[in-house]
Amino acid sequence: MWLRNCWYVIAWDHEIPAADDPKLFTRTVLGEPVLVYRTGTGDIVALEDRCCHRHAPLSVGRREGDCVRCGYHGLKFDPQGHCVEAPGIEIVPAKACVHRYPVAVRNRWVFVWMGDPAKADVALLPDNFSCDHPDWKNRPGYLHYDTPYLLICDNLLDFSHLSYVHEKSLGGSTRIAQSRPVIEPVPGATADWPQMGIRVSRHVNDVPPPPFYQRFRQFDTNLDRWFVYEFLLPGTLLMHSGGRPTGAAPDAPGPSVRLHSCQTLTPETTHTTHYFFQQSHPANEGDDTVTESIYNSLIGAFNEDRDMITAQHRNILLSSARPMMPLAMDAALIQFRRLLEARVHAEHSAAIASPHPALTT
Amino acid sequence: MWLRNCWYVIAWDHEIPAADDPKLFTRTVLGEPVLVYRTGTGDIVALEDRCCHRHAPLSVGRREGDCVRCGYHGLKFDPQGHCVEAPGIEIVPAKACVHRYPVAVRNRWVFVWMGDPAKADVALLPDNFSCDHPDWKNRPGYLHYDTPYLLICDNLLDFSHLSYVHEKSLGGSTRIAQSRPVIEPVPGATADWPQMGIRVSRHVNDVPPPPFYQRFRQFDTNLDRWFVYEFLLPGTLLMHSGGRPTGAAPDAPGPSVRLHSCQTLTPETTHTTHYFFQQSHPANEGDDTVTESIYNSLIGAFNEDRDMITAQHRNILLSSARPMMPLAMDAALIQFRRLLEARVHAEHSAAIASPHPALTT
Amino acid sequence: MWLRNCWYVIAWDHEIPAADDPKLFTRTVLGEPVLVYRTGTGDIVALEDRCCHRHAPLSVGRREGDCVRCGYHGLKFDPQGHCVEAPGIEIVPAKACVHRYPVAVRNRWVFVWMGDPAKADVALLPDNFSCDHPDWKNRPGYLHYDTPYLLICDNLLDFSHLSYVHEKSLGGSTRIAQSRPVIEPVPGATADWPQMGIRVSRHVNDVPPPPFYQRFRQFDTNLDRWFVYEFLLPGTLLMHSGGRPTGAAPDAPGPSVRLHSCQTLTPETTHTTHYFFQQSHPANEGDDTVTESIYNSLIGAFNEDRDMITAQHRNILLSSARPMMPLAMDAALIQFRRLLEARVHAEHSAAIASPHPALTT
Repeated sequence: MWLRNCWYVIAWDHEIPAADDPKLFTRTVLGEPVLVYRTGTGDIVALEDRCCHRHAPLSVGRREGDCVRCGYHGLKFDPQGHCVEAPGIEIVPAKACVHRYPVAVRNRWVFVWMGDPAKADVALLPDNFSCDHPDWKNRPGYLHYDTPYLLICDNLLDFSHLSYVHEKSLGGSTRIAQSRPVIEPVPGATADWPQMGIRVSRHVNDVPPPPFYQRFRQFDTNLDRWFVYEFLLPGTLLMHSGGRPTGAAPDAPGPSVRLHSCQTLTPETTHTTHYFFQQSHPANEGDDTVTESIYNSLIGAFNEDRDMITAQHRNILLSSARPMMPLAMDAALIQFRRLLEARVHAEHSAAIASPHPALTT
Repeated sequence: MWLRNCWYVIAWDHEIPAADDPKLFTRTVLGEPVLVYRTGTGDIVALEDRCCHRHAPLSVGRREGDCVRCGYHGLKFDPQGHCVEAPGIEIVPAKACVHRYPVAVRNRWVFVWMGDPAKADVALLPDNFSCDHPDWKNRPGYLHYDTPYLLICDNLLDFSHLSYVHEKSLGGSTRIAQSRPVIEPVPGATADWPQMGIRVSRHVNDVPPPPFYQRFRQFDTNLDRWFVYEFLLPGTLLMHSGGRPTGAAPDAPGPSVRLHSCQTLTPETTHTTHYFFQQSHPANEGDDTVTESIYNSLIGAFNEDRDMITAQHRNILLSSARPMMPLAMDAALIQFRRLLEARVHAEHSAAIASPHPALTT
Repeated sequence: MWLRNCWYVIAWDHEIPAADDPKLFTRTVLGEPVLVYRTGTGDIVALEDRCCHRHAPLSVGRREGDCVRCGYHGLKFDPQGHCVEAPGIEIVPAKACVHRYPVAVRNRWVFVWMGDPAKADVALLPDNFSCDHPDWKNRPGYLHYDTPYLLICDNLLDFSHLSYVHEKSLGGSTRIAQSRPVIEPVPGATADWPQMGIRVSRHVNDVPPPPFYQRFRQFDTNLDRWFVYEFLLPGTLLMHSGGRPTGAAPDAPGPSVRLHSCQTLTPETTHTTHYFFQQSHPANEGDDTVTESIYNSLIGAFNEDRDMITAQHRNILLSSARPMMPLAMDAALIQFRRLLEARVHAEHSAAIASPHPALTT
């Protein structure tokens, strides 16, 4: 159940080699191998990493200027994906080409559009501003999961797990699990999209400061904490979180902790997932040591999630037909799954009405 | 083809952590993950190791007194399997529970009942007396197999393999393979069970003493040897074996070797198996060195079996449709497979007539 | 899509242990485990490596003279595959036997006939003369592939890949890829076989000598090079290749390089393959160092092929339904695939008309 007409992050921009670097970067998205490289003008190109001739990966071949040559029988493709040379063939057939995926780069995330290229629309890109903003600092992260991406969406849509999975790492008080978040729709960014995702707002008042916050300052009172995030199709979390002394007004001056996080999930195959993330702190609070320390905490905590979700997935594989039991804390994840399902259904219906080659293979 | 309404060994009792040990023990039986722990009063509890909410394993969570709390979203289950707390939910739904498996502990084997709990009956437990008896000494063993459990049942039901698989380890004379055992039904333990298994009695007279016996004594004559065992549903072998000087009466005084062995097979999944076993010698014959030495021989020999059955299984996977050729030595294993098949069939018919939730998932 | 009524190489003759060596050699061909051993008279026997009784591999058992005894329950088979002894059974059933595969040994290749034994015909053996000929020297090679055998046939049927896959190893000039080979049918060796394979002749004139040739001599001119090979059913390449100073007549005296190579592919399972090969040089040109050096180059180059084909196979597994795009350089491989397909189809039709036990399992 994958949405195709949307943007997926395929890489952090620093993962894509420079134009003069002979290395070729490849990553599989929605089960399709995708080659990503930079042209001499700095543009990023994403091509199907599978020669149309005998399906060898182009990434095993080589760069030739802005083109790529297959390393098996030497077909050469330009950045549009057109085969411009086939050894020993005078007139290369016009249909000799590989799919070219629309690419967008925004705040260090490199996005590819996996559906109909004509529908690619930058208005649908998420606002991952803190990934690259003078007011914010972070160290980019990446993890690979051997589980389907929806199980990780579930995890991010129910922060009650903070109290248990991250009890010792992120300092999740059981008060977090006991609180109920407000859940609202995020309206669509374009006329085509009635709803873009789910907004989850959770406020937990009068709780001890988590050890995690000591990086910024010592508090001698309890805090009011907040986690306010959007979870957007196909799988992006954009979150403001923080804490201030209990009872202080939201915009009152004085000590507080304010963070912003961007995280996104990209299905690799039906059962494996790419996870890109960062947790930003204000650039004027904390030096590189703090940035590094937050990154290390995050990796530690995200490994806790991965261990749990991997164990959950093993159980699901043992008895895949057994139903889960929805509880109150699942409201957001159920709403998100319904939204995704409706969207995928609409996409399939549209594809049947007006088939596009890139969607039918 | 698994029987459900019967006892399976899930562990040796020493494998289950003490009540004050925070570790949680889990093992998969018939494809179901099962959590096993001790309460403060020393009772052993077996619960489905899969939270009803999102299917996370409870064994990744933690003990809280006699309860277990899921480490994902914090649901807490009592030893009956009832959810007694769900963070942020005032009234926990009654149907929020995990399956509780009936447990029996007998002579250091911990049994779970995988079918309808109402049918659990300790009269059906095998008499594995030598596992824990003042007259007998042994060291408990466990092996894991990457093969279906029925192939291992087959192995235990035809001791003609001793002459070949264990020619050098257990000293199986070819006379063993040439002899024909007497095969008889073992009557059922309760009215419900017309037959509990197969009794196999094999006597091999006037053969040289196996090197294995030198641990106890040197014989200067040939021996009459015997292997008399019951092989009981679902997969338990209880065996008396031994040897005495050729021609001596069974109860004549004088030198002899008398052993008792208990072995049992528990399917983990359709293609993997747990194997629990011990070979006991009389407590008044042989010190700890002898116990250890028997254990080491047994492990060596059982690895020979595992190598053979694993190689056999590989061949079966290559051509799973090819039929085997029944020969005279297969009488016991064929009778056992028929008995099991009839029993499974009866169980399915009864389940259709009167479905039970634990059997229908 | 396997042809059965034909010869497949199962081993180099030096791989089969001597008659007095207790080791037993086994290799899987077309998904069937095959035991190969030598009798006291030096004949090579190939038997189904699966006891008819419980399917244990005979190769885990032991030699007894010219017979083999199963290591599980002791059935003994003679070189015809007949069970001549079953412990404890007076009269062994006549149908207790394992399949005996016709064997042929020619120039150090050991062939087995995987179809109807009555059809086995040595006239169908390929002429792999240089494998064992006083005028030629080589070191035999073997590689295992985790890909289907047809992908490797494809590779050998289109040498345009030399210019790219082996650009640095075998010195494949891009001129090779630009040249077009002549493709002709190889007529059948018997009345039953209208066509045995494909002949591919490629001449590339006036190209620099490849570094590979410096083992034999330094050329101070460009060369005319040739690659002339037959690719025969089910997957054998027999190739003459070489180079001489540009413009020299084929049979003119003077410096040249002349090589002969035999290579053959044997499917192990649907997705794995055995690859036997050698590249010979004239015995009177080059010493053992040259032989060894050619072998090392070949292994290096064949690993380049394997890396490429394995990467190609990974892409095919990701989207197995996606069609490839035939181009001019595929002429030979397409003709070969058609020939194989027609032959397999004919074999199936004949098998339906007159079924043979060895073909229906």
